[in-house]
Amino acid sequence: MAKDLKITFLLDFYGDMLTDTQREAVEAYYNEDLSLAEIALDRDVTRQGVRDAIKRAEQQLLEMEERLGLARRFKEVQDALTVICDCAVSIEEQNSRMGDDPVIREHVAQILDCAEKIAVDQ
Amino acid sequence: MAKDLKITFLLDFYGDMLTDTQREAVEAYYNEDLSLAEIALDRDVTRQGVRDAIKRAEQQLLEMEERLGLARRFKEVQDALTVICDCAVSIEEQNSRMGDDPVIREHVAQILDCAEKIAVDQ
Repeated sequence: MAKDLKITFLLDFYGDMLTDTQREAVEAYYNEDLSLAEIALDRDVTRQGVRDAIKRAEQQLLEMEERLGLARRFKEVQDALTVICDCAVSIEEQNSRMGDDPVIREHVAQILDCAEKIAVDQ
Repeated sequence: MAKDLKITFLLDFYGDMLTDTQREAVEAYYNEDLSLAEIALDRDVTRQGVRDAIKRAEQQLLEMEERLGLARRFKEVQDALTVICDCAVSIEEQNSRMGDDPVIREHVAQILDCAEKIAVDQ
């Protein structure tokens, strides 16, 4: 079973809709990078039991995303924020070359500050 | 039963997790602004039946938001985007006063374009 990086991202969005048992198993597997055998040992269940729990949880996460598409929407926001930050930096570079106007400099700083606040780890 | 504007916003995020019947009733009530009696007449069910379906759907939407908080996260993004756009406009105004540098003007336009693409109606 290959670890799917997309699952880590979906877990951030929809993880709280899983049962505690499911979420704990998926987090141990994806976020703490434990093996199925290690998770099974920790919980005193079979490796197959852990595998099934994770598979079910993954299916639920993928189904939630298929229905709601919120991770995709957030991804679009993050991509746009990257472009916005690049533009803001370019404005500041040009501003420096043009005499470093303080009004422009301050507004660029505010844009970068706002963009950073709403950025999500991917 | 007062119409809760928050529900319209949550419907946009989590509506696809409701059953078809629930979603249709909530959309008719909130988005098309029909009365309970009108919705009941359309579907040949009782007014009380429609009311119950909408109440259940509202509870589900509020519970999803309580668990996942994605509407709140999007709201934060939208608020930040408003500030980013205001700053971009201020930069352009200052740029006009300072001789209208084309590099700055183009990057401001790109910021506004990106922000508009990811803006959500609220």
